[in-house]
Amino acid sequence: MHEPKVTVPVERCSEGLVEQIDDHVAVEEPCEIRLGGESVAVVMRTPGHDRELAAGFLFSEGIVKSGDIGSIRACADPDVLNPENIVEVRLVPGVEPAGDWDRNFYASSSCGVCGKASIDAIHVLAPALKDPTTFRREHIAAAVPALRGMQTVFSATGGLHAAGLFSGDGELILVREDVGRHNAVDKVIGYAYTHDLLPLNGHMLVVSGRQSFEIVQKAAVAQVPLVGGVSAASSLAIELARDKSMTLVGFVRGASMVAYAGAERLI
Amino acid sequence: MHEPKVTVPVERCSEGLVEQIDDHVAVEEPCEIRLGGESVAVVMRTPGHDRELAAGFLFSEGIVKSGDIGSIRACADPDVLNPENIVEVRLVPGVEPAGDWDRNFYASSSCGVCGKASIDAIHVLAPALKDPTTFRREHIAAAVPALRGMQTVFSATGGLHAAGLFSGDGELILVREDVGRHNAVDKVIGYAYTHDLLPLNGHMLVVSGRQSFEIVQKAAVAQVPLVGGVSAASSLAIELARDKSMTLVGFVRGASMVAYAGAERLI
Repeated sequence: MHEPKVTVPVERCSEGLVEQIDDHVAVEEPCEIRLGGESVAVVMRTPGHDRELAAGFLFSEGIVKSGDIGSIRACADPDVLNPENIVEVRLVPGVEPAGDWDRNFYASSSCGVCGKASIDAIHVLAPALKDPTTFRREHIAAAVPALRGMQTVFSATGGLHAAGLFSGDGELILVREDVGRHNAVDKVIGYAYTHDLLPLNGHMLVVSGRQSFEIVQKAAVAQVPLVGGVSAASSLAIELARDKSMTLVGFVRGASMVAYAGAERLI
Repeated sequence: MHEPKVTVPVERCSEGLVEQIDDHVAVEEPCEIRLGGESVAVVMRTPGHDRELAAGFLFSEGIVKSGDIGSIRACADPDVLNPENIVEVRLVPGVEPAGDWDRNFYASSSCGVCGKASIDAIHVLAPALKDPTTFRREHIAAAVPALRGMQTVFSATGGLHAAGLFSGDGELILVREDVGRHNAVDKVIGYAYTHDLLPLNGHMLVVSGRQSFEIVQKAAVAQVPLVGGVSAASSLAIELARDKSMTLVGFVRGASMVAYAGAERLI
Protein backbone atom coordinates (compact mmCIF):
# COMPACT_ATOMS: atom_id res chain seq x y z
CA MET A 1 0.00 0.00 0.00
CA HIS A 2 2.78 2.40 0.82
CA GLU A 3 5.06 1.49 -2.07
CA PRO A 4 5.78 4.15 -4.70
CA LYS A 5 5.46 1.57 -7.47
CA VAL A 6 3.53 -1.64 -8.05
CA THR A 7 3.59 -4.41 -10.62
CA VAL A 8 0.58 -4.89 -12.87
CA PRO A 9 -0.10 -7.32 -15.71
CA VAL A 10 -0.17 -5.53 -19.08
CA GLU A 11 -0.22 -6.43 -22.74
CA ARG A 12 2.83 -5.12 -24.53
CA CYS A 13 2.91 -4.82 -28.31
CA SER A 14 6.36 -4.30 -29.79
CA GLU A 15 7.60 -4.94 -33.31
CA GLY A 16 4.34 -6.71 -34.09
CA LEU A 17 4.78 -9.09 -31.16
CA VAL A 18 1.99 -9.03 -28.56
CA GLU A 19 2.85 -10.49 -25.16
CA GLN A 20 1.48 -10.51 -21.61
CA ILE A 21 4.06 -9.18 -19.17
CA ASP A 22 4.28 -7.67 -15.71
CA ASP A 23 5.12 -3.98 -15.74
CA HIS A 24 6.02 -1.49 -13.03
CA VAL A 25 3.68 1.47 -12.68
CA ALA A 26 3.83 4.51 -10.39
CA VAL A 27 1.39 4.41 -7.52
CA GLU A 28 -1.18 7.20 -7.25
CA GLU A 29 -3.30 7.34 -4.08
CA PRO A 30 -5.24 10.11 -2.36
CA CYS A 31 -3.75 11.67 0.77
CA GLU A 32 -5.82 13.81 3.08
CA ILE A 33 -3.98 16.58 4.91
CA ARG A 34 -5.63 17.53 8.21
CA LEU A 35 -4.73 20.53 10.31
CA GLY A 36 -5.92 20.56 13.91
CA GLY A 37 -8.33 17.73 13.05
CA GLU A 38 -9.91 19.52 10.09
CA SER A 39 -9.47 18.45 6.48
CA VAL A 40 -7.48 21.04 4.51
CA ALA A 41 -6.93 19.20 1.23
CA VAL A 42 -6.95 15.83 -0.47
CA VAL A 43 -4.11 15.47 -2.96
CA MET A 44 -3.45 12.63 -5.37
CA ARG A 45 0.12 11.62 -4.59
CA THR A 46 2.62 8.83 -4.78
CA PRO A 47 2.95 7.33 -1.26
CA GLY A 48 6.15 8.10 0.60
CA HIS A 49 7.43 11.17 2.44
CA ASP A 50 3.83 12.02 3.25
CA ARG A 51 4.72 14.06 6.33
CA GLU A 52 7.07 16.17 4.22
CA LEU A 53 4.30 16.50 1.64
CA ALA A 54 1.90 17.79 4.29
CA ALA A 55 4.42 20.23 5.78
CA GLY A 56 5.49 21.48 2.35
CA PHE A 57 1.92 21.91 1.15
CA LEU A 58 0.83 23.83 4.24
CA PHE A 59 3.92 26.04 4.15
CA SER A 60 4.06 26.72 0.41
CA GLU A 61 0.34 27.51 0.30
CA GLY A 62 0.82 30.04 3.09
CA ILE A 63 -1.26 28.21 5.71
CA VAL A 64 1.60 27.77 8.21
CA LYS A 65 4.87 29.60 8.82
CA SER A 66 8.24 28.30 9.95
CA GLY A 67 8.04 27.03 13.52
CA ASP A 68 4.22 26.81 13.54
CA ILE A 69 4.00 23.01 13.29
CA GLY A 70 4.12 21.06 16.55
CA SER A 71 3.61 17.54 15.22
CA ILE A 72 2.97 15.63 11.99
CA ARG A 73 1.66 12.09 12.30
CA ALA A 74 -0.17 9.46 10.32
CA CYS A 75 -3.78 9.21 11.45
CA ALA A 76 -4.05 7.12 14.63
CA ASP A 77 -7.85 6.74 14.72
CA PRO A 78 -8.51 2.99 15.10
CA ASP A 79 -11.83 3.36 13.28
CA VAL A 80 -10.26 4.73 10.11
CA LEU A 81 -9.73 2.12 7.42
CA ASN A 82 -6.78 3.66 5.60
CA PRO A 83 -4.93 5.73 8.19
CA GLU A 84 -1.76 5.71 6.07
CA ASN A 85 -3.55 8.02 3.62
CA ILE A 86 -4.30 10.66 6.25
CA VAL A 87 -1.66 12.98 7.70
CA GLU A 88 -2.57 14.83 10.89
CA VAL A 89 -0.76 18.12 11.46
CA ARG A 90 -0.99 19.90 14.82
CA LEU A 91 0.30 23.40 15.42
CA VAL A 92 2.35 24.53 18.38
CA PRO A 93 -0.09 25.44 21.20
CA GLY A 94 -1.30 29.01 20.81
CA VAL A 95 -0.46 29.26 17.10
CA GLU A 96 -3.24 29.87 14.60
CA PRO A 97 -3.04 29.02 10.87
CA ALA A 98 -1.69 32.03 8.99
CA GLY A 99 -3.81 31.67 5.90
CA ASP A 100 -7.44 31.40 5.01
CA TRP A 101 -7.92 27.83 3.83
CA ASP A 102 -10.48 28.87 1.30
CA ARG A 103 -8.26 31.67 0.13
CA ASN A 104 -7.77 31.80 -3.58
CA PHE A 105 -4.42 32.97 -4.86
CA TYR A 106 -5.73 33.71 -8.31
CA ALA A 107 -8.51 36.18 -7.89
CA SER A 108 -8.54 39.49 -6.14
CA SER A 109 -11.70 41.53 -5.99
CA SER A 110 -9.71 44.75 -6.27
CA CYS A 111 -8.55 44.22 -9.83
CA GLY A 112 -10.46 41.29 -11.23
CA VAL A 113 -9.23 37.90 -12.34
CA CYS A 114 -5.88 38.23 -14.07
CA GLY A 115 -2.25 37.30 -13.84
CA LYS A 116 -1.36 40.59 -12.13
CA ALA A 117 -3.91 39.88 -9.40
CA SER A 118 -2.50 36.37 -9.01
CA ILE A 119 0.95 37.79 -8.45
CA ASP A 120 -0.30 40.50 -6.11
CA ALA A 121 -2.14 37.90 -4.04
CA ILE A 122 1.04 36.17 -2.96
CA HIS A 123 2.96 39.30 -1.96
CA VAL A 124 2.08 38.80 1.67
CA LEU A 125 3.54 35.28 1.60
CA ALA A 126 6.62 35.89 -0.45
CA PRO A 127 8.54 39.15 -0.42
CA ALA A 128 10.88 39.79 -3.34
CA LEU A 129 14.19 38.02 -2.80
CA LYS A 130 17.25 39.95 -1.76
CA ASP A 131 19.62 37.09 -2.44
CA PRO A 132 22.95 38.01 -4.02
CA THR A 133 23.92 34.39 -4.73
CA THR A 134 25.36 33.78 -8.17
CA PHE A 135 25.21 30.40 -9.90
CA ARG A 136 27.65 28.90 -12.38
CA ARG A 137 25.92 27.78 -15.56
CA GLU A 138 27.86 24.52 -15.53
CA HIS A 139 26.36 23.68 -12.14
CA ILE A 140 22.86 24.21 -13.51
CA ALA A 141 23.69 22.18 -16.62
CA ALA A 142 24.98 19.34 -14.41
CA ALA A 143 22.02 19.44 -12.03
CA VAL A 144 19.44 18.37 -14.62
CA PRO A 145 21.11 15.03 -15.49
CA ALA A 146 21.97 14.56 -11.80
CA LEU A 147 18.27 14.83 -10.95
CA ARG A 148 17.38 12.42 -13.73
CA GLY A 149 19.96 9.94 -12.48
CA MET A 150 18.42 9.96 -9.01
CA GLN A 151 14.87 9.28 -10.22
CA THR A 152 14.83 5.64 -9.21
CA VAL A 153 11.07 5.16 -9.38
CA PHE A 154 10.85 7.01 -12.69
CA SER A 155 13.50 4.70 -14.09
CA ALA A 156 11.31 1.73 -13.22
CA THR A 157 7.95 3.16 -14.23
CA GLY A 158 8.48 6.10 -16.57
CA GLY A 159 5.61 7.76 -14.75
CA LEU A 160 6.90 10.17 -12.12
CA HIS A 161 7.89 13.78 -11.81
CA ALA A 162 10.77 14.85 -9.63
CA ALA A 163 12.08 17.89 -7.80
CA GLY A 164 15.65 18.24 -6.57
CA LEU A 165 17.20 20.61 -4.09
CA PHE A 166 20.78 21.60 -4.85
CA SER A 167 23.27 23.80 -3.04
CA GLY A 168 24.49 26.91 -4.77
CA ASP A 169 27.59 25.12 -6.02
CA GLY A 170 25.59 22.29 -7.52
CA GLU A 171 25.71 19.71 -4.75
CA LEU A 172 22.60 17.53 -4.68
CA ILE A 173 20.86 17.69 -1.29
CA LEU A 174 17.75 15.62 -1.96
CA VAL A 175 15.38 14.37 -4.63
CA ARG A 176 11.69 13.65 -4.24
CA GLU A 177 9.49 11.90 -6.80
CA ASP A 178 5.72 12.01 -7.23
CA VAL A 179 3.04 11.55 -9.88
CA GLY A 180 2.27 15.24 -9.28
CA ARG A 181 4.77 17.99 -10.13
CA HIS A 182 3.49 20.13 -7.27
CA ASN A 183 3.70 17.27 -4.80
CA ALA A 184 7.36 16.62 -5.63
CA VAL A 185 8.11 20.29 -4.92
CA ASP A 186 6.03 20.23 -1.72
CA LYS A 187 7.97 17.17 -0.52
CA VAL A 188 11.27 19.01 -1.06
CA ILE A 189 10.01 22.13 0.70
CA GLY A 190 8.54 19.99 3.47
CA TYR A 191 11.94 18.36 3.97
CA ALA A 192 13.47 21.82 4.25
CA TYR A 193 10.71 22.81 6.68
CA THR A 194 11.16 19.79 8.95
CA HIS A 195 14.97 20.08 8.85
CA ASP A 196 15.03 23.81 9.65
CA LEU A 197 16.58 24.69 6.27
CA LEU A 198 14.08 27.45 5.44
CA PRO A 199 14.39 29.98 3.93
CA LEU A 200 16.26 28.35 1.05
CA ASN A 201 18.46 31.32 0.12
CA GLY A 202 21.48 30.27 -1.88
CA HIS A 203 19.89 27.07 -3.20
CA MET A 204 18.66 25.79 -6.57
CA LEU A 205 15.39 23.96 -7.13
CA VAL A 206 15.39 21.76 -10.24
CA VAL A 207 12.14 20.28 -11.53
CA SER A 208 11.38 17.64 -14.14
CA GLY A 209 8.23 19.19 -15.53
CA ARG A 210 6.95 22.50 -16.84
CA GLN A 211 7.72 25.58 -14.78
CA SER A 212 4.25 26.86 -14.10
CA PHE A 213 3.02 29.72 -11.93
CA GLU A 214 2.34 27.40 -9.01
CA ILE A 215 5.82 25.86 -9.05
CA VAL A 216 7.43 29.31 -8.99
CA GLN A 217 4.95 30.42 -6.31
CA LYS A 218 6.00 27.57 -4.03
CA ALA A 219 9.67 28.34 -4.66
CA ALA A 220 9.06 32.02 -3.94
CA VAL A 221 7.43 31.25 -0.58
CA ALA A 222 10.45 29.05 0.28
CA GLN A 223 12.73 31.89 -0.93
CA VAL A 224 14.67 29.74 -3.42
CA PRO A 225 16.59 32.16 -5.66
CA LEU A 226 16.85 29.83 -8.70
CA VAL A 227 14.34 27.46 -10.31
CA GLY A 228 15.51 25.44 -13.29
CA GLY A 229 14.51 22.55 -15.45
CA VAL A 230 14.54 20.84 -18.79
CA SER A 231 11.14 22.18 -19.86
CA ALA A 232 9.57 25.51 -20.73
CA ALA A 233 8.19 28.16 -18.40
CA SER A 234 4.78 29.79 -18.75
CA SER A 235 4.21 33.52 -19.13
CA LEU A 236 2.86 33.91 -15.61
CA ALA A 237 5.69 31.89 -14.06
CA ILE A 238 8.11 34.30 -15.75
CA GLU A 239 6.21 37.37 -14.54
CA LEU A 240 6.16 36.04 -10.99
CA ALA A 241 9.88 35.17 -11.03
CA ARG A 242 10.71 38.69 -12.27
CA ASP A 243 8.43 40.27 -9.69
CA LYS A 244 10.17 38.30 -6.92
CA SER A 245 13.72 38.90 -8.24
CA MET A 246 14.13 35.17 -8.75
CA THR A 247 16.13 33.44 -11.47
CA LEU A 248 14.13 31.15 -13.75
CA VAL A 249 15.98 28.90 -16.19
CA GLY A 250 14.40 26.53 -18.71
CA PHE A 251 15.35 24.22 -21.56
CA VAL A 252 18.47 23.13 -19.72
CA ARG A 253 19.84 20.65 -22.25
CA GLY A 254 23.51 19.85 -22.33
CA ALA A 255 25.33 23.17 -22.01
CA SER A 256 22.37 25.15 -23.40
CA MET A 257 19.72 26.93 -21.38
CA VAL A 258 17.28 29.83 -21.52
CA ALA A 259 17.13 32.35 -18.67
CA TYR A 260 13.61 33.77 -18.45
CA ALA A 261 14.28 35.91 -15.41
CA GLY A 262 17.19 36.94 -13.21
CA ALA A 263 19.94 36.21 -15.73
CA GLU A 264 22.23 38.50 -13.73
CA ARG A 265 22.73 35.67 -11.21
CA LEU A 266 24.30 33.43 -13.88
CA ILE A 267 28.04 33.33 -14.36
CA MET B 1 -4.32 39.22 -23.52
CA HIS B 2 -6.21 36.42 -25.22
CA GLU B 3 -3.29 35.00 -27.17
CA PRO B 4 -2.09 31.49 -26.35
CA LYS B 5 1.51 32.58 -26.64
CA VAL B 6 3.50 35.77 -26.10
CA THR B 7 7.02 36.93 -26.85
CA VAL B 8 9.36 37.72 -23.97
CA PRO B 9 13.01 38.81 -23.89
CA VAL B 10 15.25 36.04 -22.57
CA GLU B 11 18.93 35.31 -22.31
CA ARG B 12 19.89 32.22 -24.24
CA CYS B 13 23.14 30.41 -23.59
CA SER B 14 24.13 27.91 -26.25
CA GLU B 15 27.54 26.44 -27.05
CA GLY B 16 29.12 28.95 -24.70
CA LEU B 17 27.50 31.88 -26.52
CA VAL B 18 25.24 34.10 -24.41
CA GLU B 19 22.78 36.27 -26.32
CA GLN B 20 19.63 38.32 -25.67
CA ILE B 21 16.78 37.12 -27.83
CA ASP B 22 13.00 37.22 -27.99
CA ASP B 23 11.39 33.86 -27.25
CA HIS B 24 7.83 32.57 -27.49
CA VAL B 25 6.32 31.33 -24.24
CA ALA B 26 2.95 29.74 -23.52
CA VAL B 27 0.48 32.06 -21.81
CA GLU B 28 -0.89 31.02 -18.41
CA GLU B 29 -3.73 33.11 -16.95
CA PRO B 30 -6.43 32.43 -14.38
CA CYS B 31 -9.96 31.80 -15.59
CA GLU B 32 -12.91 31.90 -13.23
CA ILE B 33 -15.81 29.60 -14.05
CA ARG B 34 -19.14 30.87 -12.74
CA LEU B 35 -22.36 28.91 -12.65
CA GLY B 36 -25.57 30.84 -12.14
CA GLY B 37 -23.51 33.83 -10.98
CA GLU B 38 -21.56 31.87 -8.35
CA SER B 39 -17.86 31.10 -8.61
CA VAL B 40 -17.27 27.36 -9.04
CA ALA B 41 -13.53 27.28 -9.76
CA VAL B 42 -10.54 29.31 -10.82
CA VAL B 43 -8.25 27.37 -13.13
CA MET B 44 -4.87 28.39 -14.49
CA ARG B 45 -5.24 27.98 -18.22
CA THR B 46 -3.95 29.06 -21.59
CA PRO B 47 -6.47 31.54 -23.05
CA GLY B 48 -8.59 30.29 -25.92
CA HIS B 49 -11.63 27.99 -26.13
CA ASP B 50 -12.61 29.21 -22.67
CA ARG B 51 -16.29 28.42 -23.12
CA GLU B 52 -15.39 24.85 -24.05
CA LEU B 53 -13.12 24.73 -21.02
CA ALA B 54 -15.98 25.81 -18.77
CA ALA B 55 -18.47 23.35 -20.28
CA GLY B 56 -15.97 20.50 -20.20
CA PHE B 57 -14.94 21.22 -16.61
CA LEU B 58 -18.52 21.39 -15.35
CA PHE B 59 -19.49 18.23 -17.23
CA SER B 60 -16.42 16.11 -16.47
CA GLU B 61 -16.55 17.04 -12.78
CA GLY B 62 -20.16 15.93 -12.63
CA ILE B 63 -21.66 19.36 -11.94
CA VAL B 64 -23.81 19.48 -15.09
CA LYS B 65 -25.26 16.84 -17.39
CA SER B 66 -25.85 16.88 -21.15
CA GLY B 67 -28.50 19.42 -22.03
CA ASP B 68 -28.30 21.26 -18.70
CA ILE B 69 -26.42 24.33 -19.99
CA GLY B 70 -28.51 27.14 -21.42
CA SER B 71 -25.76 29.68 -22.16
CA ILE B 72 -22.01 30.19 -21.84
CA ARG B 73 -20.72 33.74 -22.14
CA ALA B 74 -17.73 35.85 -21.24
CA CYS B 75 -18.52 38.09 -18.29
CA ALA B 76 -20.46 41.17 -19.41
CA ASP B 77 -20.25 43.16 -16.17
CA PRO B 78 -18.95 46.62 -17.15
CA ASP B 79 -17.37 47.05 -13.69
CA VAL B 80 -15.17 43.96 -14.04
CA LEU B 81 -11.63 44.76 -15.14
CA ASN B 82 -10.75 41.50 -16.87
CA PRO B 83 -14.03 40.07 -18.11
CA GLU B 84 -12.22 37.86 -20.64
CA ASN B 85 -10.95 35.79 -17.71
CA ILE B 86 -14.45 35.05 -16.39
CA VAL B 87 -16.84 32.62 -18.06
CA GLU B 88 -20.48 32.80 -17.01
CA VAL B 89 -22.49 29.60 -17.39
CA ARG B 90 -26.28 29.61 -17.00
CA LEU B 91 -28.38 26.47 -16.84
CA VAL B 92 -31.61 25.87 -18.71
CA PRO B 93 -34.45 27.33 -16.59
CA GLY B 94 -35.61 24.84 -13.99
CA VAL B 95 -32.41 22.75 -14.05
CA GLU B 96 -30.31 22.47 -10.90
CA PRO B 97 -26.61 21.57 -10.84
CA ALA B 98 -26.23 17.79 -10.52
CA GLY B 99 -23.23 17.77 -8.26
CA ASP B 100 -22.20 19.22 -4.96
CA TRP B 101 -19.58 21.87 -5.79
CA ASP B 102 -17.68 21.10 -2.63
CA ARG B 103 -17.92 17.40 -3.26
CA ASN B 104 -14.64 15.59 -3.08
CA PHE B 105 -14.09 12.71 -5.46
CA TYR B 106 -11.26 11.26 -3.44
CA ALA B 107 -12.63 10.68 0.01
CA SER B 108 -15.64 8.74 1.11
CA SER B 109 -16.50 8.54 4.77
CA SER B 110 -17.76 4.98 4.35
CA CYS B 111 -14.38 3.43 3.63
CA GLY B 112 -11.77 6.05 4.38
CA VAL B 113 -9.33 7.76 2.06
CA CYS B 114 -8.05 5.33 -0.54
CA GLY B 115 -7.98 4.59 -4.23
CA LYS B 116 -10.97 2.25 -3.97
CA ALA B 117 -13.02 5.04 -2.40
CA SER B 118 -11.90 7.42 -5.16
CA ILE B 119 -13.13 4.98 -7.77
CA ASP B 120 -16.39 4.30 -5.91
CA ALA B 121 -17.05 8.03 -5.66
CA ILE B 122 -17.39 8.47 -9.40
CA HIS B 123 -19.71 5.50 -10.02
CA VAL B 124 -22.72 7.76 -10.00
CA LEU B 125 -21.19 9.93 -12.74
CA ALA B 126 -19.72 7.26 -14.94
CA PRO B 127 -21.24 3.82 -15.35
CA ALA B 128 -18.96 1.10 -16.71
CA LEU B 129 -18.77 1.32 -20.49
CA LYS B 130 -20.65 -1.15 -22.64
CA ASP B 131 -18.87 -0.14 -25.82
CA PRO B 132 -17.98 -3.00 -28.19
CA THR B 133 -15.81 -0.77 -30.41
CA THR B 134 -12.49 -2.29 -31.41
CA PHE B 135 -9.47 -0.21 -32.37
CA ARG B 136 -6.67 -1.04 -34.76
CA ARG B 137 -3.26 -0.68 -33.15
CA GLU B 138 -1.94 1.12 -36.22
CA HIS B 139 -4.58 3.81 -35.76
CA ILE B 140 -3.45 4.35 -32.17
CA ALA B 141 0.19 4.38 -33.24
CA ALA B 142 -0.60 6.99 -35.91
CA ALA B 143 -2.69 9.16 -33.57
CA VAL B 144 0.20 10.11 -31.28
CA PRO B 145 2.38 11.71 -34.00
CA ALA B 146 -0.78 13.20 -35.55
CA LEU B 147 -1.55 14.94 -32.24
CA ARG B 148 2.03 16.14 -31.97
CA GLY B 149 1.89 17.52 -35.51
CA MET B 150 -1.19 19.59 -34.67
CA GLN B 151 0.31 21.19 -31.55
CA THR B 152 0.99 24.54 -33.15
CA VAL B 153 1.48 26.49 -29.92
CA PHE B 154 3.67 23.75 -28.46
CA SER B 155 5.83 23.91 -31.55
CA ALA B 156 6.41 27.60 -30.93
CA THR B 157 6.83 27.49 -27.16
CA GLY B 158 7.65 23.94 -26.06
CA GLY B 159 5.37 24.59 -23.11
CA LEU B 160 1.92 23.17 -23.71
CA HIS B 161 0.06 19.94 -23.18
CA ALA B 162 -2.48 18.71 -25.71
CA ALA B 163 -5.48 16.44 -25.95
CA GLY B 164 -6.85 15.10 -29.22
CA LEU B 165 -10.18 13.51 -30.04
CA PHE B 166 -10.06 10.85 -32.75
CA SER B 167 -12.73 8.73 -34.38
CA GLY B 168 -12.54 4.99 -33.94
CA ASP B 169 -10.77 4.59 -37.26
CA GLY B 170 -8.11 7.12 -36.38
CA GLU B 171 -9.50 10.27 -37.97
CA LEU B 172 -8.50 13.41 -36.06
CA ILE B 173 -11.57 15.40 -34.97
CA LEU B 174 -9.96 18.15 -32.91
CA VAL B 175 -6.93 19.12 -30.86
CA ARG B 176 -6.85 21.46 -27.88
CA GLU B 177 -3.71 22.79 -26.20
CA ASP B 178 -3.22 24.17 -22.71
CA VAL B 179 -0.55 24.61 -20.04
CA GLY B 180 -2.66 22.20 -17.95
CA ARG B 181 -3.17 18.58 -18.95
CA HIS B 182 -6.63 18.57 -17.38
CA ASN B 183 -7.62 21.77 -19.14
CA ALA B 184 -6.72 20.39 -22.56
CA VAL B 185 -8.97 17.38 -21.86
CA ASP B 186 -11.74 19.64 -20.53
CA LYS B 187 -11.58 21.73 -23.71
CA VAL B 188 -12.00 18.61 -25.85
CA ILE B 189 -14.90 17.34 -23.73
CA GLY B 190 -16.42 20.83 -23.73
CA TYR B 191 -16.27 20.86 -27.54
CA ALA B 192 -18.08 17.53 -27.54
CA TYR B 193 -20.61 18.91 -25.05
CA THR B 194 -21.37 22.06 -27.04
CA HIS B 195 -21.53 20.13 -30.34
CA ASP B 196 -23.86 17.41 -29.01
CA LEU B 197 -21.26 14.68 -29.50
CA LEU B 198 -21.62 13.20 -26.00
CA PRO B 199 -21.37 10.40 -25.01
CA LEU B 200 -18.13 9.76 -26.90
CA ASN B 201 -18.65 6.05 -27.53
CA GLY B 202 -16.50 4.76 -30.36
CA HIS B 203 -13.88 7.50 -30.00
CA MET B 204 -10.24 7.70 -28.87
CA LEU B 205 -8.83 10.38 -26.57
CA VAL B 206 -5.08 10.90 -26.96
CA VAL B 207 -3.16 12.98 -24.42
CA SER B 208 0.36 14.37 -24.41
CA GLY B 209 1.07 13.93 -20.70
CA ARG B 210 0.83 11.30 -18.03
CA GLN B 211 -2.38 9.33 -17.79
CA SER B 212 -3.42 10.07 -14.24
CA PHE B 213 -6.58 9.17 -12.34
CA GLU B 214 -8.19 12.51 -13.13
CA ILE B 215 -7.60 12.22 -16.88
CA VAL B 216 -9.20 8.77 -16.94
CA GLN B 217 -12.01 10.03 -14.70
CA LYS B 218 -12.86 12.79 -17.15
CA ALA B 219 -12.75 10.34 -20.05
CA ALA B 220 -14.98 7.93 -18.12
CA VAL B 221 -17.60 10.61 -17.51
CA ALA B 222 -17.53 11.41 -21.25
CA GLN B 223 -17.75 7.63 -21.97
CA VAL B 224 -14.66 7.52 -24.18
CA PRO B 225 -13.74 3.85 -24.56
CA LEU B 226 -10.01 4.37 -25.25
CA VAL B 227 -7.45 6.72 -23.70
CA GLY B 228 -3.94 6.65 -25.10
CA GLY B 229 -0.71 8.53 -25.01
CA VAL B 230 3.04 8.55 -25.20
CA SER B 231 3.54 8.52 -21.42
CA ALA B 232 2.95 6.17 -18.52
CA ALA B 233 -0.26 5.58 -16.58
CA SER B 234 -0.52 5.60 -12.80
CA SER B 235 -1.79 2.69 -10.70
CA LEU B 236 -5.07 4.39 -9.91
CA ALA B 237 -5.69 5.39 -13.52
CA ILE B 238 -5.31 1.74 -14.45
CA GLU B 239 -7.66 0.58 -11.69
CA LEU B 240 -10.28 3.09 -12.76
CA ALA B 241 -9.99 2.16 -16.45
CA ARG B 242 -10.43 -1.53 -15.58
CA ASP B 243 -13.36 -0.76 -13.29
CA LYS B 244 -15.06 1.18 -16.11
CA SER B 245 -14.26 -1.38 -18.84
CA MET B 246 -12.19 1.24 -20.64
CA THR B 247 -9.06 0.67 -22.70
CA LEU B 248 -5.93 2.46 -21.45
CA VAL B 249 -2.84 2.47 -23.64
CA GLY B 250 0.51 4.07 -22.77
CA PHE B 251 4.05 4.35 -24.12
CA VAL B 252 2.75 4.63 -27.68
CA ARG B 253 6.07 4.99 -29.49
CA GLY B 254 6.36 4.01 -33.11
CA ALA B 255 4.55 0.69 -33.46
CA SER B 256 5.05 -0.19 -29.78
CA MET B 257 2.55 0.36 -26.98
CA VAL B 258 1.51 -0.98 -23.59
CA ALA B 259 -2.14 -1.80 -22.89
CA TYR B 260 -2.83 -1.33 -19.18
CA ALA B 261 -6.52 -2.11 -19.41
CA GLY B 262 -9.05 -3.31 -21.97
CA ALA B 263 -6.55 -4.94 -24.34
CA GLU B 264 -9.42 -6.97 -25.78
CA ARG B 265 -10.48 -3.89 -27.78
CA LEU B 266 -7.16 -3.84 -29.67
CA ILE B 267 -6.83 -5.58 -33.01
